[in-house]
Amino acid sequence: MKLTPVDIAEKLDKINEHWSPHIVGELNGQHVKLAKLKGEFIWHDHQEEDELFYVVKGTLIMELRDPDERTVTIGPGEFIVVPRGVMHRPIAPEEVHVMLFEPASTVNTGNIDHDLTKKDLPRI
Amino acid sequence: MKLTPVDIAEKLDKINEHWSPHIVGELNGQHVKLAKLKGEFIWHDHQEEDELFYVVKGTLIMELRDPDERTVTIGPGEFIVVPRGVMHRPIAPEEVHVMLFEPASTVNTGNIDHDLTKKDLPRI
Repeated sequence: MKLTPVDIAEKLDKINEHWSPHIVGELNGQHVKLAKLKGEFIWHDHQEEDELFYVVKGTLIMELRDPDERTVTIGPGEFIVVPRGVMHRPIAPEEVHVMLFEPASTVNTGNIDHDLTKKDLPRI
Repeated sequence: MKLTPVDIAEKLDKINEHWSPHIVGELNGQHVKLAKLKGEFIWHDHQEEDELFYVVKGTLIMELRDPDERTVTIGPGEFIVVPRGVMHRPIAPEEVHVMLFEPASTVNTGNIDHDLTKKDLPRI
């Protein structure tokens, strides 16, 4: 628990890798994470976790199958909640900075084991 | 559950009252709320809920007793997590716009019944 303010921009400055969520807050069993995205992620879902993407900078493209495939664009100051079980694929044609809210149990690639899978996330 | 992006600024434009949280998202039993604050709130805590304040605009002053009384300043692009059981009092000398993340069960004044208490929050 942090009782000091967390400066999003300052924390983002410390992240040097794409698709690597860093934990910056924890509350009620949920994590607040920051990440820099660039390029295309993989299709995945989270069976038990709803996932919030808040765009701090840039434009995030979210491909969804809910159930039909479609694409949603999320700009700075906007968020989207991807419910559990919904297949999704984030795409960042240009670099995007996001803040994520999701249960502490959430793995970035869902139940897919992939080169992009990140576990034991760093705390910054 | 929303599968369309939520524009924070657009939602804030719809809020015309201070200290009146509006629900703009729901995930994992948590609510995402927006509020405009101005003036001084009341001292309270939440026995079962940690509460995140993310400042979108303005400067939020948070008085805390943890256990000694102190004051923390939270600027735009910063957040603070107030853990359950920690007495706190938000103060907004000038208008502040905040995004809150907290369990759906959270009441704005904790267990204090006050003129400022808000229940059955509007969804926008």
